[in-house]
Amino acid sequence: MRLDTRIVLVGTTHPGNIGSAARAMKTMGLHDLALVSPRKPPDDEARARASGALDVLENAQIHEDLDAAIADCHLVIGASARTRRLGAEPVAPPVAARSVVELPPGTRAAILLGRERTGLTNEELDRCHQLVHIPANPDYSSLNLAAATQVLSYELRMAALAATGETGLPEPSRRSQPTATAEELEHLYQHFESVLEELGFLDRSNPRQLMRRIRRLFGRALPDRNEVNIFRGILSAVQGRGSAPRRAAERRGQQDPD
Amino acid sequence: MRLDTRIVLVGTTHPGNIGSAARAMKTMGLHDLALVSPRKPPDDEARARASGALDVLENAQIHEDLDAAIADCHLVIGASARTRRLGAEPVAPPVAARSVVELPPGTRAAILLGRERTGLTNEELDRCHQLVHIPANPDYSSLNLAAATQVLSYELRMAALAATGETGLPEPSRRSQPTATAEELEHLYQHFESVLEELGFLDRSNPRQLMRRIRRLFGRALPDRNEVNIFRGILSAVQGRGSAPRRAAERRGQQDPD
Repeated sequence: MRLDTRIVLVGTTHPGNIGSAARAMKTMGLHDLALVSPRKPPDDEARARASGALDVLENAQIHEDLDAAIADCHLVIGASARTRRLGAEPVAPPVAARSVVELPPGTRAAILLGRERTGLTNEELDRCHQLVHIPANPDYSSLNLAAATQVLSYELRMAALAATGETGLPEPSRRSQPTATAEELEHLYQHFESVLEELGFLDRSNPRQLMRRIRRLFGRALPDRNEVNIFRGILSAVQGRGSAPRRAAERRGQQDPD
Repeated sequence: MRLDTRIVLVGTTHPGNIGSAARAMKTMGLHDLALVSPRKPPDDEARARASGALDVLENAQIHEDLDAAIADCHLVIGASARTRRLGAEPVAPPVAARSVVELPPGTRAAILLGRERTGLTNEELDRCHQLVHIPANPDYSSLNLAAATQVLSYELRMAALAATGETGLPEPSRRSQPTATAEELEHLYQHFESVLEELGFLDRSNPRQLMRRIRRLFGRALPDRNEVNIFRGILSAVQGRGSAPRRAAERRGQQDPD
């Protein structure tokens, strides 16, 4: 999944931060980086910090003014750490990401991140259709440029995955088992109950109480079929103990050999 | 909002990354950092990178083994970049964060992040009740330790804010205006229509068409009362033009002077 949202870094002071931002972008599938009058162009430090995202850094467009960097964009979102005197109220990152993902095909969004210390100017914020605010700790809201880029790129990816119904999670391992059905669990509980009876472990004054606790534990854990079979095997082994070891061994043989 | 989830960095190679992780934590309101056999203890580089989160770094507990670091925790979540052969299937960060926030009072969660290159060992992952996976770009999933800590801490904060019904967004500015009511908008549209009639701008064969477009634009923008008043003032100024300049000036006086 390749995300076409442009990240626009405005007036960045330290080139190293540009490299870190490029890396943060690429980890989330973004590749379109624009720089507006950085104090220094990307240097060795920027390239080192970009690491495997050197392509993003080297393809970055450098512009002298913001208008050129966003001229072909349809939705411009500014990252804002403060309350503004006037203008749009900022939204949370998932809301901003959703509005990017819901754009019609063929349109492009830009997310603007300002200077390390002072952010975006009011004139730059006036260029934005929307503001996004990362709800940081009010006592220490100092996300650096790469950290803010990471969080916003992550939310763009999460929104894009949600829109396509993907999870982005690794494929379940091939050996994973189907979740046990209610019937399989009932058989397990019956098996449990007869073993506990044989052991004299059930409270005769309230025999359901213990079974209820066992049901609750297994119910919460949503066991898979193999886990149920393992417990059935253990219960059979207990039943077979001292009386019919061969039967217990046969039952163990019925387990899924995972 | 102070979040008590413990971040456990296991076998960290570079002390600088410990400092960056401490900073990432504090920006999201986390403060409980534990280090399990870091290759080197936090040093000057770590302190420089912790920046304003020096308190988090200096209060970090250092343990020789993982069990000591999580002994008093009730839910242990491991960050995992890979599919495991066996064991829990990982969940996405918002899901893991929700399970932390939904813990009963008095319980504590730990999130484990492994070594820079190799992550957590299978033995360490076996200690985890749950695995969390940041759904990164499969072609370049190289989030550094601070970036992964930032994303997971951010999701913990977002889940905690959601659970308490807070937005974490800056207070709306005191001068923000109430959204215009349907009635206020109808008056605006009537005013618009009479001005467009006076200007001869309405298409006589289909006079509703233009008004419908104007309604759609304003409807999408959900204007506030002051914005409606500004447009009413402009329309009055157009009506007054050349004929009754004093009346237009009076109408302008009715606007909210924001």
